Amino acid sequence: MLKLYYAPNTCALATHIALEEAGADYATVRLDFADNEQRAPEYLAINPKARVPALETDRGVLTETPAMLAFVAQTFPAAGLAPLADPFAFAEVQAFNSYLCSTVHVAHAHRMRGYRWADDEGAFAAMRDFVPKSVGACFELIEKTMLKGPWVMGERYTLCDPYLFTVAQWLEVDGVDPGAIPAVMDHRRRMSEREAVRRAVAAELG
Amino acid sequence: MLKLYYAPNTCALATHIALEEAGADYATVRLDFADNEQRAPEYLAINPKARVPALETDRGVLTETPAMLAFVAQTFPAAGLAPLADPFAFAEVQAFNSYLCSTVHVAHAHRMRGYRWADDEGAFAAMRDFVPKSVGACFELIEKTMLKGPWVMGERYTLCDPYLFTVAQWLEVDGVDPGAIPAVMDHRRRMSEREAVRRAVAAELG
Repeated sequence: MLKLYYAPNTCALATHIALEEAGADYATVRLDFADNEQRAPEYLAINPKARVPALETDRGVLTETPAMLAFVAQTFPAAGLAPLADPFAFAEVQAFNSYLCSTVHVAHAHRMRGYRWADDEGAFAAMRDFVPKSVGACFELIEKTMLKGPWVMGERYTLCDPYLFTVAQWLEVDGVDPGAIPAVMDHRRRMSEREAVRRAVAAELG
Repeated sequence: MLKLYYAPNTCALATHIALEEAGADYATVRLDFADNEQRAPEYLAINPKARVPALETDRGVLTETPAMLAFVAQTFPAAGLAPLADPFAFAEVQAFNSYLCSTVHVAHAHRMRGYRWADDEGAFAAMRDFVPKSVGACFELIEKTMLKGPWVMGERYTLCDPYLFTVAQWLEVDGVDPGAIPAVMDHRRRMSEREAVRRAVAAELG
């Protein structure tokens, strides 16, 4: 059985929602970041990156949200979570998810995890102060050039939607002005009404 | 026909090599970063992110290296560049490429592009000084836990190989000790001997 390692308020929620959307049979394991469980030897044996999410499968462990999302779509094709047989459309899905992973999430991480890229308190403060601007610019680019509506890829709900919803959870703490990104906010509200999303959120925050 | 927008010494080389490996019919367009061509209105109409690479196709433009690489593999399946029909093995390829994109490349970018995450000269210097440590730690994790050998995924050459080769071009300027990562260095050397790699490198640097 699939086993998802997660911590609340992290990007693991995207894969959690996708597993719910797919109707997958899976278990979850919650890590406590306050106790540094992600750096415990038991977890490093599962994911040496010391991060969540990780997905244990009968073939081994997968990491990295874009890869895990594509795995869920490909393993449960009946759920129709990605246009798997259309190389261009699939690449569009992957490109959006890659942008969230490598640009949006990274910009956000500079608020709390500056120690990944410097070892100077002054630099941490400068990075933290810049987050509203960098994350805000990312979301404005998403609003203006990527989010087709009603779902990210248009009429079809895909892997991009749970991932955008997840990253958009951090807008307020990152100091982004929601008024500048009405389509993103509308997407977040509509996502919150989906049954799969409600189940995943309740499981993580309950 | 496919058209690859690139600049020398960027991650665009990975897709360039993959197109060569696939035997694709494609053209290239070189952007001059010194002239800020990536921010010119003509290019922003192609890629509003103001970055390379971008791949123009008859269906539209693709961006983000992991997505473009998967597109090349799926469009030219005879080249066997990814285990497309095996969800777990394909996710392993995608996870490796996602790590290069969102962690290794990002760590590297703090040497020259600190303005993405702060607006303070002191912070830029602190980020620059930390690059040997952060990029070095990434490559040690690759060496110890990811690179199966002889290719990244083991016996089979995949999309991971041109991408690792590309990112490994920056080791010396990033101040990483090559002595700490012999398997990565051996992989880079063997990659440099492939015909497809030589053609792509010659086209970009010639």
